[in-house]
Amino acid sequence: MREDPQRLRFEIDARDGSARAGVLHTAHGPVETPAFIPLATKGTVRGLESAEVAALGYELILGNTYHLLVSPGPDRIAAAGGLHRFMGWERALITDSGGFQVFSLAHGGVADEVKGKGRPGGEQGSVVSIDEEGVRFRSYRDGTELFLSPETSMETQAKLGADIALAFDECTPYHADREYTARSMQRTHRWLDRCLAWHGEHGPERQAVFGIVQGGVHEDLRRESAAAVAAAGVDGIAIGGTLGRDKEEMRGVLALTVPLLPEGVPKHLLGIGDVDDLLAGIALGLDVFDCAIPTRLARHGTALVPDPANRFRLNLRSAKWEGDRAPIAADCPCPACQHHDRDYLSYLSRNEELTAVRLLCLHNLTFMRELVAGARRAIQTDSFAPYSASITGGESPWKA
Amino acid sequence: MREDPQRLRFEIDARDGSARAGVLHTAHGPVETPAFIPLATKGTVRGLESAEVAALGYELILGNTYHLLVSPGPDRIAAAGGLHRFMGWERALITDSGGFQVFSLAHGGVADEVKGKGRPGGEQGSVVSIDEEGVRFRSYRDGTELFLSPETSMETQAKLGADIALAFDECTPYHADREYTARSMQRTHRWLDRCLAWHGEHGPERQAVFGIVQGGVHEDLRRESAAAVAAAGVDGIAIGGTLGRDKEEMRGVLALTVPLLPEGVPKHLLGIGDVDDLLAGIALGLDVFDCAIPTRLARHGTALVPDPANRFRLNLRSAKWEGDRAPIAADCPCPACQHHDRDYLSYLSRNEELTAVRLLCLHNLTFMRELVAGARRAIQTDSFAPYSASITGGESPWKA
Repeated sequence: MREDPQRLRFEIDARDGSARAGVLHTAHGPVETPAFIPLATKGTVRGLESAEVAALGYELILGNTYHLLVSPGPDRIAAAGGLHRFMGWERALITDSGGFQVFSLAHGGVADEVKGKGRPGGEQGSVVSIDEEGVRFRSYRDGTELFLSPETSMETQAKLGADIALAFDECTPYHADREYTARSMQRTHRWLDRCLAWHGEHGPERQAVFGIVQGGVHEDLRRESAAAVAAAGVDGIAIGGTLGRDKEEMRGVLALTVPLLPEGVPKHLLGIGDVDDLLAGIALGLDVFDCAIPTRLARHGTALVPDPANRFRLNLRSAKWEGDRAPIAADCPCPACQHHDRDYLSYLSRNEELTAVRLLCLHNLTFMRELVAGARRAIQTDSFAPYSASITGGESPWKA
Repeated sequence: MREDPQRLRFEIDARDGSARAGVLHTAHGPVETPAFIPLATKGTVRGLESAEVAALGYELILGNTYHLLVSPGPDRIAAAGGLHRFMGWERALITDSGGFQVFSLAHGGVADEVKGKGRPGGEQGSVVSIDEEGVRFRSYRDGTELFLSPETSMETQAKLGADIALAFDECTPYHADREYTARSMQRTHRWLDRCLAWHGEHGPERQAVFGIVQGGVHEDLRRESAAAVAAAGVDGIAIGGTLGRDKEEMRGVLALTVPLLPEGVPKHLLGIGDVDDLLAGIALGLDVFDCAIPTRLARHGTALVPDPANRFRLNLRSAKWEGDRAPIAADCPCPACQHHDRDYLSYLSRNEELTAVRLLCLHNLTFMRELVAGARRAIQTDSFAPYSASITGGESPWKA
């Protein structure tokens, strides 16, 4: 691991089994872990202002290199003084590498986030070519040809100026076979070296770089990838690629992969944010989790609730909430629950009112924030297992 | 005029020429005048929560009977305890009668608000029949046949429970000829009597009723209508119908109509909210103004600014703001101006991000609130004319 306190320092201050509570010290302040990372895909957490996201208690958000490369472009953001200043966010920022999105285009399993913002008419980007050098693709906005490679991804992320950049990788899908997954993983390792070489020479001094472990569902490949990434000299390690076809397989892959990673390094699970998965990840020793689910559910009228039987979800677009005077979730401190009942929120959601998107976004991010804050307190008091059981048993995160 | 302090009391505490500063005492608290009334068309000020609208300083908002009749329906709102409780708004509420929207459908000049919310595909409502009894029309949502008449409008408004209900009228368009306008006006007067008769028997005790003066651009008709509405026994008077083809004609019609109205009654100018028109209306002695413009502009990426040369508008969807580090308006206290520059807001607006709609909504409503608050202070210090001149000369409302 690199040792550069100027860049990123990870302090673990409590452990409970494999779970740990820590603080990630970034160039833009501390991030308490375990942390959930909301997505500010295009330079804004949809419907919320940066100051509101901070007021919810979040210390780290994620911007998407692919989307910001397409619009407004890294040069415009660099001219504003970087993504922090562009969007008025004063705390820590991480950017992904763009790899996930361009390979989602290539593999046909287009990422939901990409689908979510096709222009009316369903226009989407497309991949022109993939080779050792990088990926050539067309912008989903105007068809312009763009190129992402280890170097251009790092260059873009340097311009965005995030506190943490992610190395450019191929995110292999579940339907890729073992051989493809192995070859792709090895290229991802070569790309990691190129990312670090570029970053060492040109990267911002205070920007950390996380490497990404691939290898799909194959134990030997995950082992090989964990060793390669750890050896490359990164500031943190993220787990990417397919984790299997269901939650059970995902937990198996994580249970074998996490212990392969160096102990003291911050560990990021990419793109996972279901309540039970997040708790399972924390139990295994993962520290940070980014996911579109809480904000995407909000846009589609679904609230997170302490209801494991319904995957912790309450669909406000159902007609059945008409006349229901209860809040989404009793005792939740968010404005949706403090000021409104399900009847009204359901009406707003069914009518696709902006106010509903915003209120559900505030609610879902409050839920996730309370969930990880509770996990942190539980780890500090050696009670993570009962905390996790209480949540998966239906207790509210703000009560547990 | 009715004299019922339980219902509505209008206190004029300062005059400056014909302009006046007052307080409208409603069943849900005081409303300082002159007042701008934001639209909560469908039971929400788009993108904002009720508590936020109150925090901006607004004491009175307007709900639309037509839209709320179509969805979610008055019975559901009544079951929630009325529109105040349904939407979590604790201050004063006014509802329009639905007449404007159904006659907009009939006259082909469909109201912008109605257009704004056609379903994707452009489905719109349509009028089936208009007669002395009322208007039969089809829901823009599902084609259901609905009926609005003086009695059903008042009954709907009684269920919504607004502090102020508007009488059911025909809003005559500019292209209607004198004869049509005269006949329509006389029917509107008969409808006013029916509204008051229904309300006297069935209306909520603390709900006030405003009558609407019609008569188009014709002096004698406006005179006849003003006399009829004043004689009917209403709690306030609104000016409706066409005011002419341009601002000059509008000011002429208002200059002849306003002096015809009883002095001490609250006077509402329907649907007008351009900055200069609002100042002209205040100068004539009008007290309250509702208008979709500030919030509609926000949804289309336009901010209100102290720039009379550009109709007080700044179009953030223009590419020319790229790299502009200035806020929308210097010294504006809203979060858009306090935290963000034109470069970022333009980027968000051009990408139709919800955050832009929300921030511009906050900005435009801040602008309007400062504008009328400044007018009130100016009237109280006998300086309305110089205040108005400073604004139409390009001074910021928060400075003037």
